[in-house]
Amino acid sequence: MTFTLPRRLTAEFLGTAFLVGTVVGSGIMADKLTDDVALALLGNTLPTGAILVVLITILGPISGAHFNPAVSLAFVLNKTMPLSELAPYVMAQIAGGVAGSLMAHAMFDLTLFQLSTTARTGTGQWIAEIVATFGLVGTILAGIRFRGDAVPWLVGLYITAAYWFTASTSFANPAVAIARGFSDTFAGIRMMDVPAFILAQVIGSILAVLVLGWLLRSAKEPT
Amino acid sequence: MTFTLPRRLTAEFLGTAFLVGTVVGSGIMADKLTDDVALALLGNTLPTGAILVVLITILGPISGAHFNPAVSLAFVLNKTMPLSELAPYVMAQIAGGVAGSLMAHAMFDLTLFQLSTTARTGTGQWIAEIVATFGLVGTILAGIRFRGDAVPWLVGLYITAAYWFTASTSFANPAVAIARGFSDTFAGIRMMDVPAFILAQVIGSILAVLVLGWLLRSAKEPT
Amino acid sequence: MTFTLPRRLTAEFLGTAFLVGTVVGSGIMADKLTDDVALALLGNTLPTGAILVVLITILGPISGAHFNPAVSLAFVLNKTMPLSELAPYVMAQIAGGVAGSLMAHAMFDLTLFQLSTTARTGTGQWIAEIVATFGLVGTILAGIRFRGDAVPWLVGLYITAAYWFTASTSFANPAVAIARGFSDTFAGIRMMDVPAFILAQVIGSILAVLVLGWLLRSAKEPT
Amino acid sequence: MTFTLPRRLTAEFLGTAFLVGTVVGSGIMADKLTDDVALALLGNTLPTGAILVVLITILGPISGAHFNPAVSLAFVLNKTMPLSELAPYVMAQIAGGVAGSLMAHAMFDLTLFQLSTTARTGTGQWIAEIVATFGLVGTILAGIRFRGDAVPWLVGLYITAAYWFTASTSFANPAVAIARGFSDTFAGIRMMDVPAFILAQVIGSILAVLVLGWLLRSAKEPT
Repeated sequence: MTFTLPRRLTAEFLGTAFLVGTVVGSGIMADKLTDDVALALLGNTLPTGAILVVLITILGPISGAHFNPAVSLAFVLNKTMPLSELAPYVMAQIAGGVAGSLMAHAMFDLTLFQLSTTARTGTGQWIAEIVATFGLVGTILAGIRFRGDAVPWLVGLYITAAYWFTASTSFANPAVAIARGFSDTFAGIRMMDVPAFILAQVIGSILAVLVLGWLLRSAKEPT
Repeated sequence: MTFTLPRRLTAEFLGTAFLVGTVVGSGIMADKLTDDVALALLGNTLPTGAILVVLITILGPISGAHFNPAVSLAFVLNKTMPLSELAPYVMAQIAGGVAGSLMAHAMFDLTLFQLSTTARTGTGQWIAEIVATFGLVGTILAGIRFRGDAVPWLVGLYITAAYWFTASTSFANPAVAIARGFSDTFAGIRMMDVPAFILAQVIGSILAVLVLGWLLRSAKEPT
Repeated sequence: MTFTLPRRLTAEFLGTAFLVGTVVGSGIMADKLTDDVALALLGNTLPTGAILVVLITILGPISGAHFNPAVSLAFVLNKTMPLSELAPYVMAQIAGGVAGSLMAHAMFDLTLFQLSTTARTGTGQWIAEIVATFGLVGTILAGIRFRGDAVPWLVGLYITAAYWFTASTSFANPAVAIARGFSDTFAGIRMMDVPAFILAQVIGSILAVLVLGWLLRSAKEPT
Repeated sequence: MTFTLPRRLTAEFLGTAFLVGTVVGSGIMADKLTDDVALALLGNTLPTGAILVVLITILGPISGAHFNPAVSLAFVLNKTMPLSELAPYVMAQIAGGVAGSLMAHAMFDLTLFQLSTTARTGTGQWIAEIVATFGLVGTILAGIRFRGDAVPWLVGLYITAAYWFTASTSFANPAVAIARGFSDTFAGIRMMDVPAFILAQVIGSILAVLVLGWLLRSAKEPT
């Protein structure tokens, strides 16, 4: 099945919008209902993991369901996506992400345009974003190689885990990081902290392409 | 496998009854056991997502497992269900839903017939129901197209997410909305707020048929 | 693959032991760690649902993985299991269940032999057990018919939901009910309340065989 | 597909690192965010179960995805892995596990090298580790036999359950036990308590090979 570029970009836009809508919206809901931050994080984690399985399953056959410039970058680097499509994909992802933030605000009767005041910075956070993105891109590259049909589940489960095992709650996605900069709610991030997160994510993605590129090469002769 | 209409309507009745029985019953149980509303919502979410996977898997081959007039409407609109079956399906769904509320009340030793006093109204709630139903119907339409065997999982996971990312906790179902009007418990909704919810759900369903109708059309020639 | 009767009974014994070990053990753990009963129930629910998927997948090919006299009864009633095997299966299940209670007590340094003092009685509870067992057996019968490979998941998810939507937290299993009578912990049930639970479970099982027997008969001619 | 030994050992190293990184990291996160220990354990359980599904799916085709000397031992005992590979596998697993602890500390801005002060000892704990490892190895052996493609899920779900039904929260893994000795956080274990845990795990693994070896032998003639 081949889909036209407008349809593929629409899929990236819609998918990233629902992804960010879920991250931001469930954060607002959880934060509103409890004072226990671990419980709020759980109410943020489970919806995000769940919607990722759904979105990647239903939009993957159209656009590949990246929803994430760090993932698109990896596909360009390992030559499974033409460089010429990187810019339109990334723009659709960022636009979709920001639309997702606005959608969440509209549903919860909040001011549509916001700027986050939540500081997320420091060495630990940056290491966390490198690890988180390395793991995410590595999961996708190895998943495609060995169990293509399981990739939606692998990504949903990976993010479910990474919300908790990384100090940053695992953004691992430049478009989502930018979009969360536009929400002064549970899932927000101060815009001035976004560039360092994006840099860490790009490093994690490149590392994953390198390490997995070596790891996934099977031997020509039996060991 | 073809099943007679009485069997199909029974499947819709039983499925919607167990769906609403789960939504209402788990809401009562959760509300009884904790004062933390986020935890109660989690105790409401996980059972609902889980039972949806079960019910759609075991009843889908009989009736299609709509359990939802907004879904039946979408199938009529995209011409995969004859208009003549819409009314009987919707009636079986509403009857099943109400029976599910009564069943939950009977199990928890509550008054069988109740009318909810929980207000659920306002622009945010209505936008939430449009988004929730758009996402649900879109998930089903694209799921059927690309991964028919995964639809029970996709719906269960979608609703798991939508409980949290929509301000309304995602009713997304006119029959369930009516049935929840008959329960003055955690999951209830004041009957006077139901019509606006149904209108929003119908709008979301129609939007999904239109948008997905365009999005899912693959290109005749490679891009 | 055919397995000898001793192996099949061992599978029923081991499976029911781990099932009850999980129900009782996770109840003890959860109860010890929190004062919030909803959270304790969640810590009881998720392990039970998870272990059911595992046990049915790995022991199903050996013994059918009933672990439950109400399920064995249903298979005798719908003639897919010879009556002569009912007694040995039920005895293995009860012995396994009691062993599971003892195993949980041993792990948590509790008195091995206990008798529960938790009252679980009344009309609501009995209706709940009828509903719970009807749903469980119905899920299994329809699951086998339409998606045999998914039955472990369906049962795990059904019980995950039924813990919350039934007032009794869904025992739905005479062997497990007896075994839980031997544990004066979170998951316990006073032995004098067990017979009524078993009666309700047998009624639910018979109802499921009757209703599903009719519902699953497909039409000879297209509708 | 055959992968060279360096690649297989790298896969064991990386997999165990991410496994321990998740166990230790999510423990730190959960412990930091809540005072409720059951909730912290849940925030430790769900990420661990999720990451196991991911890691076994994506690294299993390379190295078998043991990440666990007790599992490698079982494969040597049942003659599906040459004895000569046991030592390198175990060393890669231990090195990976320790690296995972350090990685978690780095992400959360903690001292890299730590020694746990958490006592985990006593008969109940040791029985728990025997039961936990017996169940884990049994799940893997039977899973491979009947549903090889489902093994990642079975292991993830088994550990999700075993966190709660065993008194020790189910280490069930000598490499992970050693690695957790190097973290004075939620998931830690005092180094002096590690040897008894390892002994119990080895006993559990041997028992599983013996019991499953008998149980999985199907009859030559129909019963």
